[in-house]
Amino acid sequence: MSVSIQNLVVEKARAAKEASKILAYLSTVVKNRALNRIAAQIQEREEEILEANSRDVEAAKARGLSPAMIDRLLLDHFRIKLMADGVREVVALPDPVGEVISMWKRPNGLIIGKMRVPIGVIGFIYEARPNATLDAAVLSLKAGNAVILRGGSEAFHSNLILTRIIDQAACQEGIPPGAVQFIDITDHQAVREMLKLNDYIDLIIPRGGEGLIRTVLEEARVPVIFHYKGNCHIYVDRDADLAMAENIAFNAKVQRPAVCNAMETLLVNEEIASQFLPRMIARFQEAGVEIRGCEKTLNLVPGIKEATTEDWEKEYLALILAVKVVKDLDEAIQHINRYTSGLSEAIITNSYSAAQRFLQEVDSAVVYVNASTRLTDGNQFGLGAEIGISTQKLHARGPMGLVELTTYKYIVYGSGQVRE
Amino acid sequence: MSVSIQNLVVEKARAAKEASKILAYLSTVVKNRALNRIAAQIQEREEEILEANSRDVEAAKARGLSPAMIDRLLLDHFRIKLMADGVREVVALPDPVGEVISMWKRPNGLIIGKMRVPIGVIGFIYEARPNATLDAAVLSLKAGNAVILRGGSEAFHSNLILTRIIDQAACQEGIPPGAVQFIDITDHQAVREMLKLNDYIDLIIPRGGEGLIRTVLEEARVPVIFHYKGNCHIYVDRDADLAMAENIAFNAKVQRPAVCNAMETLLVNEEIASQFLPRMIARFQEAGVEIRGCEKTLNLVPGIKEATTEDWEKEYLALILAVKVVKDLDEAIQHINRYTSGLSEAIITNSYSAAQRFLQEVDSAVVYVNASTRLTDGNQFGLGAEIGISTQKLHARGPMGLVELTTYKYIVYGSGQVRE
Repeated sequence: MSVSIQNLVVEKARAAKEASKILAYLSTVVKNRALNRIAAQIQEREEEILEANSRDVEAAKARGLSPAMIDRLLLDHFRIKLMADGVREVVALPDPVGEVISMWKRPNGLIIGKMRVPIGVIGFIYEARPNATLDAAVLSLKAGNAVILRGGSEAFHSNLILTRIIDQAACQEGIPPGAVQFIDITDHQAVREMLKLNDYIDLIIPRGGEGLIRTVLEEARVPVIFHYKGNCHIYVDRDADLAMAENIAFNAKVQRPAVCNAMETLLVNEEIASQFLPRMIARFQEAGVEIRGCEKTLNLVPGIKEATTEDWEKEYLALILAVKVVKDLDEAIQHINRYTSGLSEAIITNSYSAAQRFLQEVDSAVVYVNASTRLTDGNQFGLGAEIGISTQKLHARGPMGLVELTTYKYIVYGSGQVRE
Repeated sequence: MSVSIQNLVVEKARAAKEASKILAYLSTVVKNRALNRIAAQIQEREEEILEANSRDVEAAKARGLSPAMIDRLLLDHFRIKLMADGVREVVALPDPVGEVISMWKRPNGLIIGKMRVPIGVIGFIYEARPNATLDAAVLSLKAGNAVILRGGSEAFHSNLILTRIIDQAACQEGIPPGAVQFIDITDHQAVREMLKLNDYIDLIIPRGGEGLIRTVLEEARVPVIFHYKGNCHIYVDRDADLAMAENIAFNAKVQRPAVCNAMETLLVNEEIASQFLPRMIARFQEAGVEIRGCEKTLNLVPGIKEATTEDWEKEYLALILAVKVVKDLDEAIQHINRYTSGLSEAIITNSYSAAQRFLQEVDSAVVYVNASTRLTDGNQFGLGAEIGISTQKLHARGPMGLVELTTYKYIVYGSGQVRE
């Protein structure tokens, strides 16, 4: 059994590697044609998709999954149209492959250029909704990469039909067979096998809960780019426009609390705390947000729960917020750099020097002045679709788009140069 | 014993992490002053260095190391001056930290920039000469990183005094204490401990033999950038200038055969093989190069050894060369992509289309037209000093200079923007 899982995964990875060699040199015209056909086929074959999806949804109900989980799983006419539209948006994005990032001439006449090229084979391991299948496949193809998809078992039938449609549509337009692989084995052993295949897979991007990420990190021999979690902070400075601060903080916590770029801790300068916090906290409480405050916060707003160290470390992903009053910018930066997961932080201030210091000294993937951490997103940044967000420091940091699915090679034009 | 090694390594790594937080925001002026003082002190304290070095050299002789190994270890007045000059060259290089690579405005007014910042703590594990100690420390500091050095035991005393001088000189000019760490434990357990410390070390660069690299890859929890070996190819096309081809191929094999960018296999188009090979091989043989040829090569030049599959895979690092006659460009590219280690390959041709296809389709870090693979080097490329060469595809590929020792963060200037 285990040997046969290994063989199956290796075979798929080997086929992806072979396909990637052809895919790397396909013109943008061919890749865009394939993407357009994928979009069209997703809509034309809607009934097949809905039928497969309903099997996943029935199974999820039978297993007693939460209504929120079932909603994430569910596809309908409108969501399928959105998926197809998303593919067409990727068609409209510039192709990063072949771009010469820089080129220079050496004293000996050698002309040296750095050219973007595909990475090769990307492995995606994810727990999310079925639309992640389409996003990952389409972004990988556009950047000239083959892709191996391993989705969550709860979306198995939806993912299976989606990858079949993608594969068929792509091959009809000249994408080499094997470029889109779906691991149709729900056994966890299949993931473990993927993680070892550094001869065939060039990069693995896991998306999901901390458990999944930890397993991947423990066992991967293939390079991995990921983020664990988003423990995001907003610091309201002494010199903040308090109305703006209230608006941004409210948005960052409440607009969509279950995502990684939502705020988890609000830091407030002590000089404006008594003016700002009672009103802000009342507004949060009206919206159903539970507050956990430091001692000073409790003094200003009695009756709320006291925060512990655990609260500074926690990613709630829910309508809960930790609040801390700090002495100054230094204490705010120190607190953030100690507890952050390195995703996104914001300062609200009109002080030029405080803004500049915050941007410099906070060591996170995205650092904001006077804007909501919820804006950390490939679309919001103008990168087009997003394949994930990295809190790693190597290769890609922050929202990852098409460019982050490429590497570069040096191309060198000579006229007989040798090493002296 | 093992626990105490662990504690010692963790303590050094923790100190480096602390130092890195201050180092990240030091001005170029301060960093350059520190580098200049390091250069001056290396020369002023030459006697201490030579004394320590002579202990390493004596021990190496007693252990019966080869004269070549001993020569690599040996320092003298001239080599120390070269080392100091190398440091001053790094002073002259632009500081990559703080450079805003790109910046754009979104429709909602958000201004988004990508700014280069230091990676944090770099771990170097190396077997090479003592000057690698200085290169690694100085490049890391200039790029705003703390560094943990773990050199080969044969250079222990030399490395110890060098790192002491670097540390003292740097601290005198405002580099935070702890920024330059030397692992003064020769037990291999110390390397294993380093590899686990992903809380403190952000990147490990191993430089050395395949054995070292494999150990690092097996055990590392910290991201690693490396190259195993350099199995470099030169393909002499049908349309080559044969005099240029001979000159480049000779340079690539003979100028310094023991390094990773030397040529290991020469591929020759069958249409010009009878014209090119006998003369080329005679020249190689005169220079003491042992040839291992394919059947067609043997037919053209009788009396040479026949190549086996092993020869196509081998990095000789010596005056040995594999030679293969190929039918056409396709076979050449296929052979290269199958056997290469991904470091450097060259085509010699006057055909525009052959040159363009070779640049596109050969999947290596550096691809040349009409130049020697020996040019793959940070200095030759104009990157200044070189910290290593990567055959990885993520983060850095090919020669790595100061820029490759940085990452980026997004800095976002808002005016109250929230997520709609």
